[in-house]
Amino acid sequence: MSYVAPIKEMLFVLKELAGIDEIARLPGFEDADADTARAVLVESAKFCGEVLAPLNAEGDKYPSVFIDGQVRSSPGFKEAFREFAEGGWQSVQHPTGYDGQDLPKSIGTACAEMLHASNMAFALCPMLTDGAIEALLVAGTDQQKKIYLPKLIAGEWTGTMNLTEPQAGSDLALIRTRADPNDDGTYRIFGTKIFITWGEHDMADNIVHLVLARTPDAPEGVKGISLFIVPKYHVNADGSKGARNDVQCVSIEHKLGIKASPTAVLQFGDRGGAIGELVGEMNRGLQYMFIMMNAARFAVGLQGVAIADRAYQLAVSYARERVQSRPVDGTASEAIAIIHHPDVRRMLGTMRALTEGARALAYVTAAHCDMAQRHPESVARLHHQAIYEFLVPIVKGWSTELSIDVASLGVQVHGGMGYIEETGAAQHYRDARILTIYEGTTAIQANDLVGRKTARDGGLVAKKLIQEIALTVEALGSQDGVAFDLMRRHLAQGQRSLETVVNHVLANVQEDPNGVFAGSVPYLKLAGIVLCGWQMARALLAAAGKRNEDPRFYSAKIATAQFFAQHVLPQAVALEAAITSTKGDEGMLVLDEAQF
Amino acid sequence: MSYVAPIKEMLFVLKELAGIDEIARLPGFEDADADTARAVLVESAKFCGEVLAPLNAEGDKYPSVFIDGQVRSSPGFKEAFREFAEGGWQSVQHPTGYDGQDLPKSIGTACAEMLHASNMAFALCPMLTDGAIEALLVAGTDQQKKIYLPKLIAGEWTGTMNLTEPQAGSDLALIRTRADPNDDGTYRIFGTKIFITWGEHDMADNIVHLVLARTPDAPEGVKGISLFIVPKYHVNADGSKGARNDVQCVSIEHKLGIKASPTAVLQFGDRGGAIGELVGEMNRGLQYMFIMMNAARFAVGLQGVAIADRAYQLAVSYARERVQSRPVDGTASEAIAIIHHPDVRRMLGTMRALTEGARALAYVTAAHCDMAQRHPESVARLHHQAIYEFLVPIVKGWSTELSIDVASLGVQVHGGMGYIEETGAAQHYRDARILTIYEGTTAIQANDLVGRKTARDGGLVAKKLIQEIALTVEALGSQDGVAFDLMRRHLAQGQRSLETVVNHVLANVQEDPNGVFAGSVPYLKLAGIVLCGWQMARALLAAAGKRNEDPRFYSAKIATAQFFAQHVLPQAVALEAAITSTKGDEGMLVLDEAQF
Repeated sequence: MSYVAPIKEMLFVLKELAGIDEIARLPGFEDADADTARAVLVESAKFCGEVLAPLNAEGDKYPSVFIDGQVRSSPGFKEAFREFAEGGWQSVQHPTGYDGQDLPKSIGTACAEMLHASNMAFALCPMLTDGAIEALLVAGTDQQKKIYLPKLIAGEWTGTMNLTEPQAGSDLALIRTRADPNDDGTYRIFGTKIFITWGEHDMADNIVHLVLARTPDAPEGVKGISLFIVPKYHVNADGSKGARNDVQCVSIEHKLGIKASPTAVLQFGDRGGAIGELVGEMNRGLQYMFIMMNAARFAVGLQGVAIADRAYQLAVSYARERVQSRPVDGTASEAIAIIHHPDVRRMLGTMRALTEGARALAYVTAAHCDMAQRHPESVARLHHQAIYEFLVPIVKGWSTELSIDVASLGVQVHGGMGYIEETGAAQHYRDARILTIYEGTTAIQANDLVGRKTARDGGLVAKKLIQEIALTVEALGSQDGVAFDLMRRHLAQGQRSLETVVNHVLANVQEDPNGVFAGSVPYLKLAGIVLCGWQMARALLAAAGKRNEDPRFYSAKIATAQFFAQHVLPQAVALEAAITSTKGDEGMLVLDEAQF
Repeated sequence: MSYVAPIKEMLFVLKELAGIDEIARLPGFEDADADTARAVLVESAKFCGEVLAPLNAEGDKYPSVFIDGQVRSSPGFKEAFREFAEGGWQSVQHPTGYDGQDLPKSIGTACAEMLHASNMAFALCPMLTDGAIEALLVAGTDQQKKIYLPKLIAGEWTGTMNLTEPQAGSDLALIRTRADPNDDGTYRIFGTKIFITWGEHDMADNIVHLVLARTPDAPEGVKGISLFIVPKYHVNADGSKGARNDVQCVSIEHKLGIKASPTAVLQFGDRGGAIGELVGEMNRGLQYMFIMMNAARFAVGLQGVAIADRAYQLAVSYARERVQSRPVDGTASEAIAIIHHPDVRRMLGTMRALTEGARALAYVTAAHCDMAQRHPESVARLHHQAIYEFLVPIVKGWSTELSIDVASLGVQVHGGMGYIEETGAAQHYRDARILTIYEGTTAIQANDLVGRKTARDGGLVAKKLIQEIALTVEALGSQDGVAFDLMRRHLAQGQRSLETVVNHVLANVQEDPNGVFAGSVPYLKLAGIVLCGWQMARALLAAAGKRNEDPRFYSAKIATAQFFAQHVLPQAVALEAAITSTKGDEGMLVLDEAQF
């Protein structure tokens, strides 16, 4: 079955929760109002639904293949990428100065969700290209920007990120790839990079590798890492493509999912050195990466939302068609479509509530990014930037963790058919499984949340958000009805749990780092649950006010918010109990490794 | 990496929790004491570790294949099955009268766990054969038993269960396969059966299909279903193999996992009718199935324990070897093995706590079955039978649900390597995914728990168990220490939640079946969490008493119990909140299907 982008839902979130009207008042975004958003979303939905979605199962069935140092992409992908580029879809969020459309991130986020939902393996290629563009915008010279950005933004060339090495995954301090200076200011790059997404393929004329490496006299550890542009084909001064550079794809991985997306092992410098150019200042490579990393991590979080929605759509479609068993309430004597069975409703409700909550939080996070970049007042920019940075690890960690559960429920709704590959539910379950791993595992996100995002500012941003949640709890109190009662009760409890845990983290992170970091992922999940619950509460308030405008849409939104309050928010208390009772000097944390 | 059966842990559970010494006092089980258990387990561990475990990845890489109506099993499987049969491993729990070893189910359970952990796709074949043996023992004629049982118990022939049809999965009332009587008392079977595990293969000389079908004058629905033996090859009166029967494998499925295990579509009667014999009385097929179903569902629950343990072992092994990042507490300036990182401990702790809790509950359930079958007093037999039947859907549902989470954590511990198929973690994630589906989905187990196991006896058995938990809570109060404090607090809370929910179910199942059944899976999970927590509490008490005998083993057990109390038991409250607040006439349950 195909993918139908939930445009109405997306526009609801953009308007009612992410504040697209406010964003349209920012300098340079004057045209980006709700009408523009709708027009862009409709076009994007059309392209994604018609061109990319049908290729998703094909790409899984016929993965990209490695033949003699080259990668042949899955059938139809090359043509689809051409259409993608010609449609201008690579350019959505990039500056007009390099032929981009310069749309707000909040609108770009909706487009990106569609891309990933329709074909995640495909969408990884433009996603990585976005990363390369960001890196060059942040740190490239004018000449580098002039040469590379128009090609990348036009979708003529694609980009990659080369961080990981066999011994250096989460721990980039262990990077060994070497960059030896040449007399002409370029460098010769030597080393092996692994897990390079779309690191080799046949969809574009050139591939622009951004590579982390060390110069000979660089300090040890993360402070000695620099960033280099290493194109697959050399680029002449006029921007035209030159000879082949000394970077070779030596193999691609046999993966659990996202099989159309080639994951390359790249060998640099086997024939004298791959020629690279330094990007930005020497030894500042990791800092540039960190600037981009928020965008990249956010994008992966969005993949979680996307695949969750795709899995949900497939499950709903099956549940409407599959007839099995009589209703438990005895209202019919014949078997009925399983969508009417209470447990199927519970499963679909769980999938939907988690997905909508995560979508709302992601779009709101994107809106903070827009405000951080364009707000005329610097105080406001800093405020939004801080919130954006606080939310990114949560969007990344929580949306991806839940996407695995949602995809798994999607299999379950299908019963035995879910286990048969042809049905498609299993592909989502396999594809989703990468999301909690790449661009920083959930533990890495949680470390970031504890260290840089909570402890560093003494919980300032965390507590600002907790205060805002309290205001929403108050607002819920002014409304009657079971959905409001349940949401008020459970959001209030969730808010208290979050506050308790933030205080626990602040109080103990110095003295008992092991205990606190053993609770870091539970803290991230708790934050995800409460912040998404908060967005669902805001959605509930908005929906209640507009119920008469579109009763079917808004009553479904209210039901989903109620479900979130009943089934998801109560988990906050359980996480609080685990986090606050964990101490670094006891239990599982002090066993020796042979006791495992 | 290979599989090492956790013999010490298994014996601890058998002795301290399942009461193997008491079982050895039952008539016919006099030899089945702890020493026998140890001897059997050591032999089983050897066979499983050496012969089956190494084939597990092979079977995944080279699935069984369908060629011209026949199935070629994965490389090495045929030879392994021969060894399995010759070692007498099919005969463990079956009667001595048919050349079985007649060991208690509690010991057989440990052996079965090893089989499934070492190679689940392989072990499915003997598991289904066990089912066929049970069916014939329950309902076969003396002649049927005499002909089929020795062959099946010797592992010369294998057995299958043919229930599902394209339109009849969870809902067996929809079965259409037809059985037309012949003059000689046999039947001609016509129909299509799907999802037949090991329904066709080359590992044994004959395959004994047990098939649900309807005779021409049978009542509609489940009351018109009869059970038939339909061997792949006819069997002569002397037990020798005759000509080919009219049952053909027309295809096997392309599945997410357990790829070595062929899942067949069987076509009966394309050439005039497959000859079958009635088993037991006409129209009682489903009743016989229900008798066997407890055993089959229990066995699948055990697969959950098994694959969880295998995934845990693999993750521990990787975590010991993989060096990455410095410790968060600053105790070293170099990168360390990731097993020392707090979040990896949390993941391994979660995997271990869930697995040990599920193992304990499964073995205790098996012990109740032993008591139910052999206790000299009928009152005691009924008591144990009732508890056994109550626990089966929980062992099936909860152990399998957690096995997916555990296998997923196993991938996560591996980071990027977990997503590469060669590592093996992904296979467990794929294999485990079937467990919540076959032999009745988790929803089917939960319906059973609500309807037949809780409501039917007015909560009698449920409340008996709740009282026993209360006694354990009391016992915990007599001990000092953080593990005891945490366990007492959270088990007491879990016990209260379980009681509240049981009362909620009893009070509302008649009036609001939709609301109650929307909470049925959460109820099953709650029961699983609390009952496994109870077993971990009993393990904690036992371990504390024996700590000095083997300090490293018992301190690990205490740490695991503490972890369970902190991280798993608190989830009970969240489930209680979801269950008790769900009503059938509101929210997600009253949306129309187009609103999804």
